Amino acid sequence: MQLPVTDDLPAYIIAPDPGAPRLTRKVEGVDHAGQPAEIAVVEERPLTIFLNGQEIVTAMTIGDYPEYLALGFLRNQGMLAADETVTGVDFDEDLETVVVRTDGQTNYEEKLKKKTRTSGCAVGTVFGDMMEGLEQVRLPDLKVKTSDLYRLASVINRTPSLYLEAGAIHGTVLCRGGEPLVYMEDVGRHNAVDKIAGWMFSEGVSADDKLLYTTGRLTSEMVIKTALMGIPALASRSGFTAWGVEIAREVGLTLVGRMRGKRFVCLAGEERLVRDVDPDSVPDEDKKHRRKSAGA
Amino acid sequence: MQLPVTDDLPAYIIAPDPGAPRLTRKVEGVDHAGQPAEIAVVEERPLTIFLNGQEIVTAMTIGDYPEYLALGFLRNQGMLAADETVTGVDFDEDLETVVVRTDGQTNYEEKLKKKTRTSGCAVGTVFGDMMEGLEQVRLPDLKVKTSDLYRLASVINRTPSLYLEAGAIHGTVLCRGGEPLVYMEDVGRHNAVDKIAGWMFSEGVSADDKLLYTTGRLTSEMVIKTALMGIPALASRSGFTAWGVEIAREVGLTLVGRMRGKRFVCLAGEERLVRDVDPDSVPDEDKKHRRKSAGA
Repeated sequence: MQLPVTDDLPAYIIAPDPGAPRLTRKVEGVDHAGQPAEIAVVEERPLTIFLNGQEIVTAMTIGDYPEYLALGFLRNQGMLAADETVTGVDFDEDLETVVVRTDGQTNYEEKLKKKTRTSGCAVGTVFGDMMEGLEQVRLPDLKVKTSDLYRLASVINRTPSLYLEAGAIHGTVLCRGGEPLVYMEDVGRHNAVDKIAGWMFSEGVSADDKLLYTTGRLTSEMVIKTALMGIPALASRSGFTAWGVEIAREVGLTLVGRMRGKRFVCLAGEERLVRDVDPDSVPDEDKKHRRKSAGA
Repeated sequence: MQLPVTDDLPAYIIAPDPGAPRLTRKVEGVDHAGQPAEIAVVEERPLTIFLNGQEIVTAMTIGDYPEYLALGFLRNQGMLAADETVTGVDFDEDLETVVVRTDGQTNYEEKLKKKTRTSGCAVGTVFGDMMEGLEQVRLPDLKVKTSDLYRLASVINRTPSLYLEAGAIHGTVLCRGGEPLVYMEDVGRHNAVDKIAGWMFSEGVSADDKLLYTTGRLTSEMVIKTALMGIPALASRSGFTAWGVEIAREVGLTLVGRMRGKRFVCLAGEERLVRDVDPDSVPDEDKKHRRKSAGA
């Protein structure tokens, strides 16, 4: 089978908005030749997340979708149960705060105690919950077509994005089959994942038939987050860490990394891969759209 | 002036040790063609840092230089004063803990309260101290020769490293003039910086004549850390964030990014650059050693 070549980009439910004035800024500098250089750089601003009356954390974010970021963050930290009734999410742009209100009581104080600093972090804090519940995770047996993987990589790389506009940003895309659905970007790759989790929680979207594509590395934390979100497949242009691979194998997550052109490596859940395309039929990446991989 | 071409690498005080068995692991997988693929992936293991009797944080790290990581982390979080007397640093490999002992009292409890989630993090926590003390920072007026920048980029890219061996890792290098001195790598770029801070603290090394080279993005946090360490120049292959540039300009840090071959952009402290080499005399990067930039 030949890989279908499509020049038109799919209809994203949410796509990056590289033209949004709040997300990038033109900065004057000087280049290697001593010439004035004006380049677009991504914004980075604080957002303080409250759960009911409790201040939880201040995130550094590009600032789009603060409500999704707050909801997804609290969900991924186990501070908001899947069945929790959210009575309100109030974002105040001037105060740079977002308050998530629930009708139930939450046990965040306990969770604020334990801290785990995580890869790629100043002091990543997982509030002791990241590993919790992992043993209960049963991921659905989703088949992953290599034709879909190739299509996703090709489409996502060609999608206008803040990365292509200004760089220095991570992207994460929620996909179904060969179709990217929600493409979030942020200065922190975990913000991008959390914004997707917040969108899924808000819309009540099932994770069973989804694949997560990230520009970041496949660290233990990325794998844990994906598994706890119930998403059975995780793909990236970037590389792996040993513990990330171990956890993916334990929870039955299909883990595909180092995706470049026709190349990739699958280090977990290989039995779920459906090899329905000849890799040699896959065109190389357009250099202009070639995306670097985080830290690798 | 022509850029000197040196094929021999300089004598690092500390260089990466890609051959160290504890830092990487061979993992069996399957490649794009369905063929078995055994690749080297970096290890990622927890290290719990104690300050005297108090558990502070658990870091995910490749696991080399735990003592430097602990000391540098506590220094960079403002939990250990520059003049603090450290009476002992005890690493226990089995318990995966490192205990830093001081003779004075520390005010870490206060610092544990406030949290700031930072770029590239799950939940980066800055313990409320990152911005503190920034207004007192007076960075020395270090001249930065472009010939040194080019030499550093060239030498560092050709230095055998875990990145070249396994990828998915960040590197940070403490440099003086055109000489890289201490090259630390870690799964989290901030661990790499902290290991350098710990080494400087242990050895009583002055920051006045140093430049920090990082493979990571020039986010606000990276800039703040460098400034608080007293290092007057920060260079990277990667891109910028707007707030990172703002802070660099406020504290007088020379900020150089997007370094590729002869190209770079300087967005702060340009007046400190000494352009002593013709960019056109700079050879392009050897593709084999071309390093990707984190998230950009």
